[in-house]
Amino acid sequence: MREEIKVEIIDGEDKLSEMGKRAVMAKYALAALTTGQKDRALRAAAEALNGRADELLAANALDLEAGRAAGMRPAMLDRLALTKERIGAMAEGLCQIADLPDPVGEVMETFTRPNGLEIEKRRVPLGVIGIIYESRPNVTADAFGLCFKTGNAVILKGGSDAIRSNAAIETVLRDALTAEGITPDAIQMIRDTDRTVTERFMRMKAYVDVLIPRGGAGLIRAVVENATVPVIETGTGNCHIFVDESADVDMAVKIILNAKTQRIGVCNACESLVVHEKIRQRLLPALAAALREKHVEIRADERVREVIDGCTPVTEEDYGTEYLDYIISVKTVDSVEEAIAHINRYNTKHSDAILTQNAENAEKFLAGVDAACVYVNASTRFTDGFEFGFGAEIGISTQKLHARGPMGLKELTTYKYAVRGNGQIRG
Amino acid sequence: MREEIKVEIIDGEDKLSEMGKRAVMAKYALAALTTGQKDRALRAAAEALNGRADELLAANALDLEAGRAAGMRPAMLDRLALTKERIGAMAEGLCQIADLPDPVGEVMETFTRPNGLEIEKRRVPLGVIGIIYESRPNVTADAFGLCFKTGNAVILKGGSDAIRSNAAIETVLRDALTAEGITPDAIQMIRDTDRTVTERFMRMKAYVDVLIPRGGAGLIRAVVENATVPVIETGTGNCHIFVDESADVDMAVKIILNAKTQRIGVCNACESLVVHEKIRQRLLPALAAALREKHVEIRADERVREVIDGCTPVTEEDYGTEYLDYIISVKTVDSVEEAIAHINRYNTKHSDAILTQNAENAEKFLAGVDAACVYVNASTRFTDGFEFGFGAEIGISTQKLHARGPMGLKELTTYKYAVRGNGQIRG
Repeated sequence: MREEIKVEIIDGEDKLSEMGKRAVMAKYALAALTTGQKDRALRAAAEALNGRADELLAANALDLEAGRAAGMRPAMLDRLALTKERIGAMAEGLCQIADLPDPVGEVMETFTRPNGLEIEKRRVPLGVIGIIYESRPNVTADAFGLCFKTGNAVILKGGSDAIRSNAAIETVLRDALTAEGITPDAIQMIRDTDRTVTERFMRMKAYVDVLIPRGGAGLIRAVVENATVPVIETGTGNCHIFVDESADVDMAVKIILNAKTQRIGVCNACESLVVHEKIRQRLLPALAAALREKHVEIRADERVREVIDGCTPVTEEDYGTEYLDYIISVKTVDSVEEAIAHINRYNTKHSDAILTQNAENAEKFLAGVDAACVYVNASTRFTDGFEFGFGAEIGISTQKLHARGPMGLKELTTYKYAVRGNGQIRG
Repeated sequence: MREEIKVEIIDGEDKLSEMGKRAVMAKYALAALTTGQKDRALRAAAEALNGRADELLAANALDLEAGRAAGMRPAMLDRLALTKERIGAMAEGLCQIADLPDPVGEVMETFTRPNGLEIEKRRVPLGVIGIIYESRPNVTADAFGLCFKTGNAVILKGGSDAIRSNAAIETVLRDALTAEGITPDAIQMIRDTDRTVTERFMRMKAYVDVLIPRGGAGLIRAVVENATVPVIETGTGNCHIFVDESADVDMAVKIILNAKTQRIGVCNACESLVVHEKIRQRLLPALAAALREKHVEIRADERVREVIDGCTPVTEEDYGTEYLDYIISVKTVDSVEEAIAHINRYNTKHSDAILTQNAENAEKFLAGVDAACVYVNASTRFTDGFEFGFGAEIGISTQKLHARGPMGLKELTTYKYAVRGNGQIRG
């Protein structure tokens, strides 16, 4: 069994181009598959993951062993670990993707020009998608499922910590595709851990249509800095909640607590509060008590510290920080306009919320805040493909090109214009 | 008058950041303008261009003088030259943009989640758009008009050949905005001709949301190589026409002649022919005669050269070349599948056409060719925002993210999700 999951470090220059070429061949084949063929293959792949769980666990055991030897923290080891249940969840994820409607082939628009040309805007796969991601091995199956359902070929570059687990999952998925009569090059994986190979991958414009990094701010920055392939930037979330003068205090405490502490290390968690001057006396004592019960450190400006004790003074740097931790910054403002200006200065264009009973201020905030998702009276934690009802999610886009906010299947497609004429020439 | 159009070389590091900051301030103001305010300002700007034509002509005369002194070719001098008529056409362009519907604010979709969250997908401006372009000064007014109508702030970096003309146009437009009570920073221009300033501009992620290069392949490559700001790649077109076995020969000759010679230096011109083995005897003599009448050099494979005399043997390099000249490459194939494979190998994903009377082959070609616009029985020259009925065009995208093919006003927008709740938290 160990042979099967052996990690071959043979990528290098030629291997990478070879993968690119194979992905391009695969993308044409995948674009031509019917929805039925794709869904059958996804279910077969799910079955294969469960059926070959022992192989996956054996590969994962080697990654865990290496992680422990390298002194990996328990939380990271837990992220890395596979179990029968987690493998079952991965397989279930593929079946759920099979159940979703296929966006490919949708006719988005048709129009006829005065000269008789019939123009059809048709939804098609992006082509070859590159995904660069960190530890968690379930991303391997998940990213494959989403790309495959939308007729795309995917080249994956996972973290070196999970390389044996990822390679084992890739092997199982490729075998399942082959058994279904579908090109296994729908999924390929870069197993070379050399940084220069990853950098070259980011510049493979001849083969790769889109690059999606999934991981921490450092990974995303490295991709944006180095890629020539178009990138969809994901993930960094310095999310704000503004408590307006007229907010319902009970609702505010409940929402802030949820957004800050329900899950601490995620991009849609709240990192910063903006509080209207005229509600601080009513809001802050109850809020501080609730946050402290959850061991949240409060870093606040002077006007907040007038009302509650024991806060750390906040700095400019705090306002710009995505803590992903039990820390929250707080700023006092005198108007919704000041709140909007503050948020637009420090946010990462991800998700921001206003809590208010004033409809006019709600509309001002919705219009004025520059973010993918802007909320009125709800937790920022809802920025999520599943919560939005997309049934799946490849990431949260924080850029403005192509897709913004949660990206589901549709966001993994593009369009082409099919134009039918009968001899038209341009005059 | 000369003072007004003086080119100040004071951009440098600080000036560039300052421009970025001003553009960001402007984008919030512009996003809040009504359609009526924008349309009035566009018409006022048009009037100002006509009213101050003498200033523009004086500035242009200096560019032309410098161009002549530097030995600029007559065709380039003609591209650079402004006349009263050309200024009138620029102004007319702004009025046409004013007449188009405003895409900003459109509700693209609404849906309610089981937990009661009401999600609205709303069309909004991209924000700050950077445009890097070459010679022709009319692009200055045109790009401003399109960006302004869609509520975006624009920072322009034009070619140094036209710098005095561009600066004069910018001055007139800024003055017109100011007179309308609108921030003149809706349009700013980088006047520094230092290459390093342009490179820094491409990396101003803190201020610029999208970069659109408009120009030749070299310019576009430089932007793609250096930018960290998301880029919409435009323009390069190695467009193919495939003449299938069943094509109407008269129609084929007419379409190919149009696509190759109606305008030679444009991205939607035909650069390469693919001919079905079984039509070459019927097609090629008539086609070669028509092309030669227009002085088109034919570079062809052996099977073509068997039928017509005087062709240059074609090379692999020819197949990959966008000539933008009176040259065409020709390849013979035995099937529509071979044609599709050849085209996908060498095209630039811009525009390709099949000429055929066989409906099945037409559909195969529409589905199989990976390009922004795929045609049946029509000239590739129709890939154009005006010909598609968009009423305007900022460029032709040859990438797959965000927009593909002709980009009009809609393609200069993105969306945000406005989410309304009544206390929802995530469980």
